[in-house]
Amino acid sequence: QCNLTGLWENDLGSRMQVSKVDSQGNFSGVYHTAVSSTQKPIEPCPLVGSQHLDEDGQCTFGFTVNWNKFSDSTAVFVGQCFAGEDGEEILHTSWLLREKVDSLPDDWKATR
Amino acid sequence: QCNLTGLWENDLGSRMQVSKVDSQGNFSGVYHTAVSSTQKPIEPCPLVGSQHLDEDGQCTFGFTVNWNKFSDSTAVFVGQCFAGEDGEEILHTSWLLREKVDSLPDDWKATR
Amino acid sequence: QCNLTGLWENDLGSRMQVSKVDSQGNFSGVYHTAVSSTQKPIEPCPLVGSQHLDEDGQCTFGFTVNWNKFSDSTAVFVGQCFAGEDGEEILHTSWLLREKVDSLPDDWKATR
Amino acid sequence: QCNLTGLWENDLGSRMQVSKVDSQGNFSGVYHTAVSSTQKPIEPCPLVGSQHLDEDGQCTFGFTVNWNKFSDSTAVFVGQCFAGEDGEEILHTSWLLREKVDSLPDDWKATR
Repeated sequence: QCNLTGLWENDLGSRMQVSKVDSQGNFSGVYHTAVSSTQKPIEPCPLVGSQHLDEDGQCTFGFTVNWNKFSDSTAVFVGQCFAGEDGEEILHTSWLLREKVDSLPDDWKATR
Repeated sequence: QCNLTGLWENDLGSRMQVSKVDSQGNFSGVYHTAVSSTQKPIEPCPLVGSQHLDEDGQCTFGFTVNWNKFSDSTAVFVGQCFAGEDGEEILHTSWLLREKVDSLPDDWKATR
Repeated sequence: QCNLTGLWENDLGSRMQVSKVDSQGNFSGVYHTAVSSTQKPIEPCPLVGSQHLDEDGQCTFGFTVNWNKFSDSTAVFVGQCFAGEDGEEILHTSWLLREKVDSLPDDWKATR
Repeated sequence: QCNLTGLWENDLGSRMQVSKVDSQGNFSGVYHTAVSSTQKPIEPCPLVGSQHLDEDGQCTFGFTVNWNKFSDSTAVFVGQCFAGEDGEEILHTSWLLREKVDSLPDDWKATR
């Protein structure tokens, strides 16, 4: 069974620490991003999310990172856990980053 | 100040009920989607997320919906709250839907 | 049959002029965007694309806008034509905007 | 200078053949996809697009693939050329795939 609890690192060097996944599949943790579109120093930020509890070890999951330690932005990640040939688990995710904009006419460019 | 607590409805007729936002900006709730890409009957599903607590009422936020009541999928939403001219709040969001795939070669098509 | 030839305007006030669609479905035209993420003055830019020639008037299509008149960026749009109840055609599109980045480590933030 | 003319292959094994890029940056070609979300046999399909002609070899570009040989769908790709340390050029792209839907209520799920 895939369980997100633990420390994960992605290709860019960002790391996330996920604490215990509860019986509903909910979890929280801390995300240390390696990259940022702001000028302020990067700090670890809190995340909350949810995963399926399928027994085949290939569950989908999602989580929200609130970049409140150094920006107004919020990111969401969604993905799936895959077990590699050697039993190692790998996460494949896609993400959206929402940057705060001043007004609705700027809404079109807020998300990348 | 923008506060997600309450009942929201989007253009498609999907509704979400967000319970109390805590002092960290975390919240949970229930999402009643009006649309689905599966054949199974739609049921309300749990959501968890996080919002900024900016005092200007234009906070960004994100949340995860775990479609565990009728599918293997997970969705994430990210957006920003805007106050309309009449003081009414409106949420602008983008989303990603992750559908479970059997193996890595199908990963390319898992997210929409 | 849906035919993209003509003048189209979107919700943001951007307009595009599509010239004759050829027998392969290819077309070219000019895109006058109403919004920009650069500081330089906006100018009309060339587009090239392709549409299906389905006879049900609900064809999908895509096109590329080369923002070469005022930026290093490129945008792509993909969508479908729908006939409204009054026979009026409406285009529903999604887009990606690629901004030039200096090096691969910035690649993650290049597309919105 | 980056020039898309030639044969390219991606991680999934899809290949594209781009013919001569003209003085405006426009090009056409053929895309042989290695993956498909339809059941029909895959066939090579035509593409049209446009690239910037920046002299630093890091141009952005975009193109449309009309999957008319075996489906109703259209895809768009947008990306940037990067020169590797060994002078080899590599393309980084993002894409959207539009599948035809029967009516507007299904529009939400048409793009991945």
